Amino acid sequence: MRIGFIGLGNMGGPMAANLLKAGFDLSVFDLSSAAVQAAVAQGAKAVASPAELAGADVEVIITMLPAAAHVKQVYLGDEGLLARVQPGVLLIDSSTIDPHSAREVSAAAQAHGNPMLDAPVSGGTAGAAAGTLTFMVGGEAADFEHARPVLAAMGKNIVHCGGAGNGQVAKVANNLLLGISMIGVAEAMSLGVKLGMDAEVLAGIINTSSGRCWASEVNNPLTGAPAARGYSGGFGTDLMLKDLGLASEAARQVRQPVLLGALAQQLFQAFSNQGNGQLDFSAIVKLYQEG
Amino acid sequence: MRIGFIGLGNMGGPMAANLLKAGFDLSVFDLSSAAVQAAVAQGAKAVASPAELAGADVEVIITMLPAAAHVKQVYLGDEGLLARVQPGVLLIDSSTIDPHSAREVSAAAQAHGNPMLDAPVSGGTAGAAAGTLTFMVGGEAADFEHARPVLAAMGKNIVHCGGAGNGQVAKVANNLLLGISMIGVAEAMSLGVKLGMDAEVLAGIINTSSGRCWASEVNNPLTGAPAARGYSGGFGTDLMLKDLGLASEAARQVRQPVLLGALAQQLFQAFSNQGNGQLDFSAIVKLYQEG
Amino acid sequence: MRIGFIGLGNMGGPMAANLLKAGFDLSVFDLSSAAVQAAVAQGAKAVASPAELAGADVEVIITMLPAAAHVKQVYLGDEGLLARVQPGVLLIDSSTIDPHSAREVSAAAQAHGNPMLDAPVSGGTAGAAAGTLTFMVGGEAADFEHARPVLAAMGKNIVHCGGAGNGQVAKVANNLLLGISMIGVAEAMSLGVKLGMDAEVLAGIINTSSGRCWASEVNNPLTGAPAARGYSGGFGTDLMLKDLGLASEAARQVRQPVLLGALAQQLFQAFSNQGNGQLDFSAIVKLYQEG
Amino acid sequence: MRIGFIGLGNMGGPMAANLLKAGFDLSVFDLSSAAVQAAVAQGAKAVASPAELAGADVEVIITMLPAAAHVKQVYLGDEGLLARVQPGVLLIDSSTIDPHSAREVSAAAQAHGNPMLDAPVSGGTAGAAAGTLTFMVGGEAADFEHARPVLAAMGKNIVHCGGAGNGQVAKVANNLLLGISMIGVAEAMSLGVKLGMDAEVLAGIINTSSGRCWASEVNNPLTGAPAARGYSGGFGTDLMLKDLGLASEAARQVRQPVLLGALAQQLFQAFSNQGNGQLDFSAIVKLYQEG
Repeated sequence: MRIGFIGLGNMGGPMAANLLKAGFDLSVFDLSSAAVQAAVAQGAKAVASPAELAGADVEVIITMLPAAAHVKQVYLGDEGLLARVQPGVLLIDSSTIDPHSAREVSAAAQAHGNPMLDAPVSGGTAGAAAGTLTFMVGGEAADFEHARPVLAAMGKNIVHCGGAGNGQVAKVANNLLLGISMIGVAEAMSLGVKLGMDAEVLAGIINTSSGRCWASEVNNPLTGAPAARGYSGGFGTDLMLKDLGLASEAARQVRQPVLLGALAQQLFQAFSNQGNGQLDFSAIVKLYQEG
Repeated sequence: MRIGFIGLGNMGGPMAANLLKAGFDLSVFDLSSAAVQAAVAQGAKAVASPAELAGADVEVIITMLPAAAHVKQVYLGDEGLLARVQPGVLLIDSSTIDPHSAREVSAAAQAHGNPMLDAPVSGGTAGAAAGTLTFMVGGEAADFEHARPVLAAMGKNIVHCGGAGNGQVAKVANNLLLGISMIGVAEAMSLGVKLGMDAEVLAGIINTSSGRCWASEVNNPLTGAPAARGYSGGFGTDLMLKDLGLASEAARQVRQPVLLGALAQQLFQAFSNQGNGQLDFSAIVKLYQEG
Repeated sequence: MRIGFIGLGNMGGPMAANLLKAGFDLSVFDLSSAAVQAAVAQGAKAVASPAELAGADVEVIITMLPAAAHVKQVYLGDEGLLARVQPGVLLIDSSTIDPHSAREVSAAAQAHGNPMLDAPVSGGTAGAAAGTLTFMVGGEAADFEHARPVLAAMGKNIVHCGGAGNGQVAKVANNLLLGISMIGVAEAMSLGVKLGMDAEVLAGIINTSSGRCWASEVNNPLTGAPAARGYSGGFGTDLMLKDLGLASEAARQVRQPVLLGALAQQLFQAFSNQGNGQLDFSAIVKLYQEG
Repeated sequence: MRIGFIGLGNMGGPMAANLLKAGFDLSVFDLSSAAVQAAVAQGAKAVASPAELAGADVEVIITMLPAAAHVKQVYLGDEGLLARVQPGVLLIDSSTIDPHSAREVSAAAQAHGNPMLDAPVSGGTAGAAAGTLTFMVGGEAADFEHARPVLAAMGKNIVHCGGAGNGQVAKVANNLLLGISMIGVAEAMSLGVKLGMDAEVLAGIINTSSGRCWASEVNNPLTGAPAARGYSGGFGTDLMLKDLGLASEAARQVRQPVLLGALAQQLFQAFSNQGNGQLDFSAIVKLYQEG
């Protein structure tokens, strides 16, 4: 299968590499020529623009971009994909953007005769490199089945979430909860330790009780792997901040209150402003420690 | 083993019944004569006051009371246990109270020559009846071992949390996190559904992703068992409200900020004031639905 | 002076009427022909589109529109003002929009040779009718002086806030604080009354103490004029909700945490969802009363 | 008039000095002999204990103590005032404590035949020295009139707030609002400046608009006097933290939600933990600045 791929950054680069390893024929574009050359060295063909990619003989185009503004430009711009692409080519956007924008782009694609899936991922750069990402996919069931072998080359958990935009909805809802529960774990662990408990003992009790969650079990801010390595790597604070911004904006648009979510967003913002934006988001526990 | 038991309410009643079933010799006291008679019908002996119980020939005394004020009165009052009890008798308080009060009573008991454990429980009235409670126990390791067979007759998960008061610390920390994560699940599920996702599909995705927690898996506010039965029974909103009050007060005493925790407490208070105090605490999702 | 006016809604209608009363020559446009006819009956000339207005012989154009999307379309759209207007015509946007969009439109106007002011108002429909609005104005000082006699026909407090966009910044900052302090008054008054104080006595004490604020003195949620008339009229909950949305989005863009502000926004959202969007925003006190 | 005075700390010391200046006959007690000697040097008589003071020939006893625990001990303890004082002596507690404790002590005093007033103050140590404190007084109207000349020697604004405990209610409600509005001002000023406005210009606009409040006008965190002197002196962060703790605990007791209030308390706690407890509470704006 011939595939086009736009966006070879920290996530897109290793995802494209996994498609090449799986034997797909890959044409790539990125603003960074270094990123393009790295992909070419792994077997990809370089194209000079999204428009050229749209005109190439591909069956599927995948995009992995930083934010909704880039996605809109790449798909809807005067020199964008929809201005050139052949009807019938399957479009897959793996960027994390707000559901409203995802649905707007999908509707434009459908109107142009192109099936489209929104397919944001979780799993981070480690998952992208290992090919173990989770894909949360919105769009038609038939298109989802069509895309499955392609996505399976990059991830191991491929979930259909319903119609267009629902992949983004699932991601934004999950990460809203994740941000809240991480701060909840930070507060509970900090309080328990301040009241005299051993952090490991407390984590053990919580993880066999009703407080247990991914953030207490896998990524505990005091006893987890990121804490042990000084919070380097992992899922960065600024990425969580971006996702909470998407969640609260999506909530505003549909008039849905998210009280703890909005507060969590502000706390990650304050923590990032202290120079911690690159640390694993479990480092938020530092906000709760004496200065 | 001869045991005294004070406090035969919704929790203490079935706990005492399980001790009787396990063959312990039980002397009981409660302000409600109906509760006492029920225990007597199951084989217990009635005593007329805590003071009389303290003077009886028992090796262990267990208390299960509503709040710290009752615990202090029963242990420290002029007619209280410590005024009469023989040195060496093991004292176990299974009430849920603040760690500071627990440590204050424990210190008084030690000074009187009585080993003491704080041993609050989780598992609710259903766990009390089934003998499947979790006991979170603070106190000396030797005393914990001494108490283990007694506690094992009432629960199946008996955890030593460290020194005096640590049982209360573990409970308060766990339930602080539980209250936060339940509201987090309520916000994430409400947002996802408002944005067009099916609640069951969304719950399924969260429960296999990084947002998963006890509140999303076991007690999901939209798809869980309490929701299916109209939020009757379960862990009541007013009990969660009490525990969050203990957490924020304990936090204040040790100058530990708990931002999401304090907000969660206020939200459960607002929800309780709308007449929902008896509903399962997952009903908090109603705060997020249009009126 | 010949003036063009676009947007004859609840605010723009009476503002235009005051310009006519002051003797200005006024050409008007609105999507609603009824609104246009009302202005014509007061002496205005009707034009058929923003483009036609831009082509007319006017020295100043004022816009009063619902949101940033409308402002961008009217100024920057293919058929918008900047596509047609003569260089040198002074453009004044009195809409309440986010500072970033205001600056974007202003920069486009400057590039086209048109001085531009952002001049959002406070004072509500009553102030618009009475000609007592406050104008918070961003832009060049000379342009501000040029506009002053025009604005003075519609308001009595005309404040220069600095360069382009600063009128919007001032409004968003003021209303962020207003939203927070109104909820603060609601909480303080509710707590005092619940603890046994008379609302009038408490309001009197606060208003001579360090808690005093516009929201306690002029618009007290328990003892103020809106409360006395069942919270009808006044500054609507949904308008406050819009302004808090602008504030939190502007804060997100410049990475400025606004913790109480974000929470206030969510509380007004929850209150609006209960069917209260049209009530004066001091009605938020109802959230704090038992249901 | 012969007056007894207990508690000669930062506030009580200068208050007693003003009573002496006004010509009252004063007997004093404090745990600190240095404080007692300072008062004696100004004309007071020293007594050896609260009990001795209670037995002395005084018509009024005033107490100024750190917290409710001290008040309860001094009034209700085995060696306390009520164990010795003559019926009819007027008792005035100027400590800031929770309304519930104030009412408990007042009821005990009434039962013993002693009229009692709760009369917490605002105005700080500067107001105590200058004799310009505000007294918020709860108790019977006749007792209030009886106390008025005494209080007038120490303050200039003497307000009757209703029955027993209402002085404390007024103070706690006012300071709850003050804490919230100060953080509101901090957020609004920080946001405006981050968006490009001059702080003085913004403060000027807010102070003539609907956002105006004591915290923006008199104690503005960016442009006020405390900011100009590095936030030294003034109303300390830890005093505001104490008052917000009293407010949230009083709210919990009467089941009154205080969402912004609870969050404000946590923010002052976090700020104090960074080593800022002694700074004027307007320094909270530092939480909003980049680290």
